Amino acid sequence: MNFHVLTLFPDMIRDGMNTSIIGRAMAGGFLDIEAVNIRDYAFNKHQKVDDYPYGGGAGMLMQAEPVYLAYESVEKKIGYQPRVIYLTPQGKVFNQEMAKDFAEEKDLVFLCGHYEGIDERVLEEIVTDYVSIGDYVLTGGELPAMVMMDSISRMVPGVLTNQESGETESFSGSLLEYPQYSRPEIWHEKKVPPVLLSGHHANVEAWRREQSIYRTARWRPDLLKKADLSNKEWNQIRQWRKQWKEESQKAEDKE
Amino acid sequence: MNFHVLTLFPDMIRDGMNTSIIGRAMAGGFLDIEAVNIRDYAFNKHQKVDDYPYGGGAGMLMQAEPVYLAYESVEKKIGYQPRVIYLTPQGKVFNQEMAKDFAEEKDLVFLCGHYEGIDERVLEEIVTDYVSIGDYVLTGGELPAMVMMDSISRMVPGVLTNQESGETESFSGSLLEYPQYSRPEIWHEKKVPPVLLSGHHANVEAWRREQSIYRTARWRPDLLKKADLSNKEWNQIRQWRKQWKEESQKAEDKE
Repeated sequence: MNFHVLTLFPDMIRDGMNTSIIGRAMAGGFLDIEAVNIRDYAFNKHQKVDDYPYGGGAGMLMQAEPVYLAYESVEKKIGYQPRVIYLTPQGKVFNQEMAKDFAEEKDLVFLCGHYEGIDERVLEEIVTDYVSIGDYVLTGGELPAMVMMDSISRMVPGVLTNQESGETESFSGSLLEYPQYSRPEIWHEKKVPPVLLSGHHANVEAWRREQSIYRTARWRPDLLKKADLSNKEWNQIRQWRKQWKEESQKAEDKE
Repeated sequence: MNFHVLTLFPDMIRDGMNTSIIGRAMAGGFLDIEAVNIRDYAFNKHQKVDDYPYGGGAGMLMQAEPVYLAYESVEKKIGYQPRVIYLTPQGKVFNQEMAKDFAEEKDLVFLCGHYEGIDERVLEEIVTDYVSIGDYVLTGGELPAMVMMDSISRMVPGVLTNQESGETESFSGSLLEYPQYSRPEIWHEKKVPPVLLSGHHANVEAWRREQSIYRTARWRPDLLKKADLSNKEWNQIRQWRKQWKEESQKAEDKE
């Protein structure tokens, strides 16, 4: 998988993707990240890439031509029209399923906006996917591109070890993680739950599954619909809910 | 606003927050980012901070003590217990309102997990906010922390110019951005919409608002509920919807 990032801040991309797994995958030849400096494709001697918007308004816009030429340099290099992702709050909200889908491409281009945005005409001409990483405003497209590259990389065969893949899969099952404990057995007077020290594998698994379901029901009930739960587990959730309702009722009565 | 990031990859934080606005705000003294290396608080000569999970399972866990000591170093320095954000897919999904809320703190601590996670007991002891930036799996907490810092910074008084604040506010109104155009007037045979060249300010505003509503209705209808729309605008949306339905009906009939 080759990522090509069209950006005004190539150093940010180069320096920022330096975590253990991504660095390892690049060293192993499973993926490559190329930062293309849009400023190198400015058609004036000052390397200016922005101008005022027609119709007035705050701030500057990135102009069509430098963005287009930067894109074209990638297209020429790889010899075909790749998918081009434009990072924008207007986009479809990114999720794990989209990460899987993007991971099947050979090349992916990320277009990182700055200032007030980018001239609409070049977006119409080159962008295939408008994507947002969430409902919040960011300064530029670089951080979202890095987030997406991290997430997509993890779905590329060879990047994760088998063990690590397992972790990621667990999220796809739409249940939150169970709590985990490492040495020492007692820390700040808090003990590791005894079942984890029992050596009884089936009990450990049952406890972890219950914890995952409990947390999901409590904090992210919106995920439960997609989770694969048994009737018994749904009954348990109903019981917890009754209990939580009673508890909050009691808390209200006290006030 | 002071950000304190507890991390195993301090360089990633230092190098990655280098965009125009954040860099400018740091230079202007409006915010400061400190990366605290958890490894510096390991209690063994190998600076090991991870160990196997009790009960078995894939991967390694970050141990409680080094994380706690790294946190404690911040608490001692600032002299009070700050809010501590743990980046986790289990958390409440980050949005613009949360960014505003966090921006009112004097200090914010971000705890970045890696490997399989962090010992539950230290999370119970120090974490005040469990936050996720979206429903996708990432390698570590560093990128989400950077995303949150970028978004929160923009809400800190003095960080943005008045013009820039305006842009951000526009998103809070829950409508997507209208399309924008800059020079030249004709690019790749595509013309700038004539209204933008008219110099008629009210018409420009009306066109832009309509475009914003059109895009929101088409691509992110979930945002419309929160938008402040007139009855006339809702009627317009109903008309568009009827039209889209007819179009997709026609497309189906052709097949």
